[in-house]
Amino acid sequence: MNTTDTTPETVTSSTAHARTATPTGPLPVPPAGGPRLDVEAVSAALLGRWAEVRREARERAARPELHRPVDATVAEHRERVFAQLQTLADEGVARPMLPESLGGPNDNGANVAAFEELVVADPSLQIKSGVQWGLFTSAILQLGTEEHHRAWIPGAMSLETPGAFAMTEIGHGSDVQSLATTATYDPETDEWVIHTPFRAAWKDYLGNAAVHARAATVFARLVTRGVDHGVHCFYVPVRDAEGNLLPGVSSEDDGEKGGLNGIDNGRLAFDHVRVPRTNLLNRYGDVDADGVYSSPIDSPGRRFFTMIGTLVQGRVSLDGASNRASQLALTIALTYASQRRQFSAADPSRETVLLDYQAHLHRLLPKLAATYAGAFAHEQLLQAFDDVFSGRGDTPEAREDLETLAAALKPTSTRLALDTLQECREACGGAGFMGENQLVGLHQDLDVYATFEGDNTILLQLVAKRLLADYTSELKSVDRAGIGRFIAQRAETLARRHTPWTELAQGIGDRGNPRRAFDSMRQADFQEEMLAGRARIKVEEVALALRPAGRMSPEDAAAHVNKHQVEMLDAARAHADLVRWRAFTDGIEAIDSEGSRAVLTEVRDLFGLTVIGDDLAWFLLNGLISTQRGRQIAADQRRLLWRLRPHVLDLVAAFDVRPGHVRAPIALGGEKERQDEAAAYFRAQRASADAPVSEKVLRDQERRRQKAARGAGASARGARR
Amino acid sequence: MNTTDTTPETVTSSTAHARTATPTGPLPVPPAGGPRLDVEAVSAALLGRWAEVRREARERAARPELHRPVDATVAEHRERVFAQLQTLADEGVARPMLPESLGGPNDNGANVAAFEELVVADPSLQIKSGVQWGLFTSAILQLGTEEHHRAWIPGAMSLETPGAFAMTEIGHGSDVQSLATTATYDPETDEWVIHTPFRAAWKDYLGNAAVHARAATVFARLVTRGVDHGVHCFYVPVRDAEGNLLPGVSSEDDGEKGGLNGIDNGRLAFDHVRVPRTNLLNRYGDVDADGVYSSPIDSPGRRFFTMIGTLVQGRVSLDGASNRASQLALTIALTYASQRRQFSAADPSRETVLLDYQAHLHRLLPKLAATYAGAFAHEQLLQAFDDVFSGRGDTPEAREDLETLAAALKPTSTRLALDTLQECREACGGAGFMGENQLVGLHQDLDVYATFEGDNTILLQLVAKRLLADYTSELKSVDRAGIGRFIAQRAETLARRHTPWTELAQGIGDRGNPRRAFDSMRQADFQEEMLAGRARIKVEEVALALRPAGRMSPEDAAAHVNKHQVEMLDAARAHADLVRWRAFTDGIEAIDSEGSRAVLTEVRDLFGLTVIGDDLAWFLLNGLISTQRGRQIAADQRRLLWRLRPHVLDLVAAFDVRPGHVRAPIALGGEKERQDEAAAYFRAQRASADAPVSEKVLRDQERRRQKAARGAGASARGARR
Repeated sequence: MNTTDTTPETVTSSTAHARTATPTGPLPVPPAGGPRLDVEAVSAALLGRWAEVRREARERAARPELHRPVDATVAEHRERVFAQLQTLADEGVARPMLPESLGGPNDNGANVAAFEELVVADPSLQIKSGVQWGLFTSAILQLGTEEHHRAWIPGAMSLETPGAFAMTEIGHGSDVQSLATTATYDPETDEWVIHTPFRAAWKDYLGNAAVHARAATVFARLVTRGVDHGVHCFYVPVRDAEGNLLPGVSSEDDGEKGGLNGIDNGRLAFDHVRVPRTNLLNRYGDVDADGVYSSPIDSPGRRFFTMIGTLVQGRVSLDGASNRASQLALTIALTYASQRRQFSAADPSRETVLLDYQAHLHRLLPKLAATYAGAFAHEQLLQAFDDVFSGRGDTPEAREDLETLAAALKPTSTRLALDTLQECREACGGAGFMGENQLVGLHQDLDVYATFEGDNTILLQLVAKRLLADYTSELKSVDRAGIGRFIAQRAETLARRHTPWTELAQGIGDRGNPRRAFDSMRQADFQEEMLAGRARIKVEEVALALRPAGRMSPEDAAAHVNKHQVEMLDAARAHADLVRWRAFTDGIEAIDSEGSRAVLTEVRDLFGLTVIGDDLAWFLLNGLISTQRGRQIAADQRRLLWRLRPHVLDLVAAFDVRPGHVRAPIALGGEKERQDEAAAYFRAQRASADAPVSEKVLRDQERRRQKAARGAGASARGARR
Repeated sequence: MNTTDTTPETVTSSTAHARTATPTGPLPVPPAGGPRLDVEAVSAALLGRWAEVRREARERAARPELHRPVDATVAEHRERVFAQLQTLADEGVARPMLPESLGGPNDNGANVAAFEELVVADPSLQIKSGVQWGLFTSAILQLGTEEHHRAWIPGAMSLETPGAFAMTEIGHGSDVQSLATTATYDPETDEWVIHTPFRAAWKDYLGNAAVHARAATVFARLVTRGVDHGVHCFYVPVRDAEGNLLPGVSSEDDGEKGGLNGIDNGRLAFDHVRVPRTNLLNRYGDVDADGVYSSPIDSPGRRFFTMIGTLVQGRVSLDGASNRASQLALTIALTYASQRRQFSAADPSRETVLLDYQAHLHRLLPKLAATYAGAFAHEQLLQAFDDVFSGRGDTPEAREDLETLAAALKPTSTRLALDTLQECREACGGAGFMGENQLVGLHQDLDVYATFEGDNTILLQLVAKRLLADYTSELKSVDRAGIGRFIAQRAETLARRHTPWTELAQGIGDRGNPRRAFDSMRQADFQEEMLAGRARIKVEEVALALRPAGRMSPEDAAAHVNKHQVEMLDAARAHADLVRWRAFTDGIEAIDSEGSRAVLTEVRDLFGLTVIGDDLAWFLLNGLISTQRGRQIAADQRRLLWRLRPHVLDLVAAFDVRPGHVRAPIALGGEKERQDEAAAYFRAQRASADAPVSEKVLRDQERRRQKAARGAGASARGARR
């Protein structure tokens, strides 16, 4: 294999790229003198603001006693994870979440960062921690007041009181406002009566509910003096110290799940269970002894969304954990692909490394690029979360922005993680299907990340609604001159659609020169313009399409909006793509290493061009991209694959996924060892006189001999003439 | 909800579609008088040529003792499946595969059809049966000769001899030609010496190898008289009757896998293990007592592919089983979606059924359409397989066509099954993640279908190579007039790319009339032209791009081909799409029920337009589709979703997935029961005087009262003026 200082890209015009073209295969390592990733610097950039916390958490996640078991029963796995949770409690891992009033540092960003990293130990442990501290304890902290904190937080922190977060019901998951459990105030006894009115109102899928929970934060409709004040949260003991269910409380086990079987998910129901009036977590709504309701927030709708909004932390941490899982999967699959050899196209004595196949790069590198984008986007989300929850930047607007950002990123990164895990597993062939190689287990565990803590479809719909509201309010608030600008912009959008594309400025600049088009499409300005334009126009189109709904009956309006649901989700995804692309670009600019910026810019370009390429028909039909560039884009993506090939292992190394995180034998040198042993065997065979000769080789030799004989005969005949 | 005889489609021009537009929501059932699916007729069409065998197999698959266990350990699951296999053996389920010489009917199609249906009982049982009879027994049957059949087939059939199919090695899976295990002939003892030379040559991932196998059909390089004749198959006993490994044989357990844990996959290695010379399965290659090799096929390459080709049955049955699994998943998810209600957009007393959301139809119906296409395509594959293996149509060309068809369909249907299972699981939310609802278990089990029995990527590459070879030989064989036609066709392809699309004939015909464009794109001719044109042009493009390789050194040529690997795979997928579309279209024409043909034609249109829409940029850039149609296509797909909405449950019913196959509580009426109970509760509440009033309603009333008072005041003031 030739390893000259070149990349094997010709595509349409090989001469134009002579300086970067070798016909004989890709480069396994960066060429001397070219840009090279500074692994330390990029690793530091990815670690972000809570670098120290993450480093510590990564050491923790490498400890064998915290790892996912292989071939455990559901019962064994549950007990193992419960014991691990106790370890974390004893070590005070969740302490950063405590506010100053409880003697903590109120360092919410650090807290979430530390727990995200647990996903590479065992996603069950990450999520069980999330149930105990991120949901159950957080509900007491965020929705309760001082007395509640004093009474219940210590037990929740120490795991003396394992808790369930009893929000979801069988009948209502995403639609929390429609929960049916009731909490009716009884002024006679100064108590709440918690009640499950029918089967669909059973609380379901609750971590800790099947076995471990002693208490639950129960979401129920607060009813007092004949008025239903909507969903509020109540602290309800459910089991005694021996683990027996308390009177009136029923529980069922969800049994085996698709994954996360270290968590005892189950159902809870309440048959007129009584708790003291003060068990209402009363920060946003309270009832006095006479049953008179009061709230600092007048509007029931806004009050509900404020309460729910305090729980955004779950989405933030799923975003981070999904990203980390993608990093682990890519580390395994790309390490294996750089050692595994299969098929010898040319050199019979040496097979080709998987990563040198175009299709292999094509299936994995765009995922690597998107995972980089996701990591930088997550850091922005985590900082926004910390700013709000530390109180430093806690305004209603900042909260709303945070919720929108979380709603945009959580669906994107959980989807990416599942797709990446599946692609990595398939890219490792049969080895990828073995439990010990981690990929299948990760997919099983992360599967539910797509639908819990806010179903991905519902979250994207929230994002779309926010984007539409912003668009509408922007339109409303503009002055006369602004309206003019809007009309002009809209006219341009429509005009573009009818511009023959060969006349686009792009076409004139690029004409007949794929190299120039390649360079142009790699301009940050071009990608920014494309992605921002797409995000804006998609929202605008939906907004215009929905306008007639304003003049319709509620039924008709709902049906009309429903006819544009797919476009709404599409607009939300376009927004998330833009957010990720910008975060990636900002992240690169902040890195103090020229070589790293150069390599990462190509990774960013691969991300940008992949996003554009995946929606290319839209760009063409809307006149944003010329036919020439449109034809060029797939070739450009492939060119980037080869250019990035030498940097793949550096890019993976910067993820800082450690041996204790990688437990897959195929990515821990096992494959390399086997390849070396096999190569040594064949070398010895070639050197040996006793080695068998291939029938095919003998036949080829015979054929050549006969041909030569015929040739000799022919030339002898020729000479005779 | 209004259920007039209409569909709710407006898209761009609502007035143009007034006759089919209702603003208030989709239809849950087919309108009276319109076309309706004849479930019986369509079911019969899907059952195909082996209808009776399938009906019997479906009854079998409904038997509880054959079902996948929930929460079993790997060891328990393995023993359960082994016992189930014994049941099948005792019932003679595999008997149809036996040739007349062994007293069987040689009904290969029936045999495969029967085993495919087992996937809905437990995929582990389907695959363990496949290992025992489809691979181990088949290898003896297809590669061995009469004496072998007499000696070993009875034990294999009765499960007295559980067997492993020892082909794959740790180091080589897809590249079977490079296997490293050797079988060296020793004329002194008239024996083969089977040997594993290094770790990577261990046989791996073999079903039955870890525990149950008593014998194995071992693929090894046949070496005699110093010549390596390539990979041949040998019958090798591996364990004694007590289950102890025989001398020289080593075994390791693959342990827990991502799925299919009812199968004891494991590794086997051989340390100079000796078997009699006659243990070579010698149909395609033999060695006499002196060690002289002979074969009916001269070329070692063709000989190898002939031997491997006899094992195509595995791919055929995976194609069928994947399709059946998709049918089961869609039955579960669509049944649930037609009962589950969530969010009330308009009517506060009644939430909307999931299936009435555009996004829900959009995520599931294209998969339903593709599953229909896959079923009809599979029936063609199975008939082709049966024709060849019955001997009725066994020509080299027919075998090659069969192998290409299997290589095109197996990757397509296994991919579709995984995507469908994942989409269905997510569409069922948290319930979809519960083990009892089957979707997660099916995904886990079918995961490996994408990479075993021929890795999907490798198979698509085989298809591409065949298409390229056909293209080249076609070019070579045409006469002068043919070359002229070729040049003219090529000129047209290139010219189209530079035609402004508004001038395409399509544009002229459709102009300004989306309805007409809709009808045009639903023409079979249009879809056929698009899909066939795409398949042809994609092959042509790759063929032309690869031409320079012919003049290069082998290394350079390999690198050059590698630069077009992604395009090759893309061309193969385009071919598979065309095959499926045509099979679907042919299948519809054969159905003797006008209503069914009408409904299925819309399903076919949804399939066709989805395939075209997914590659729309390509069609635009190649001038095959006009901008107007390009803009219209997404709206047309959505229109089809609403048109098909009333037929969804009929379409699912035609799959004939029975209650014993569906064991998911969410699809067996549980959800409907809960919805009915909740609805009754709310009805009673509304009728009751004691029911609490919503704070929001009270506030709205108060606001209206105040507004009215202000209005009254204002008009009073106005009257005073």
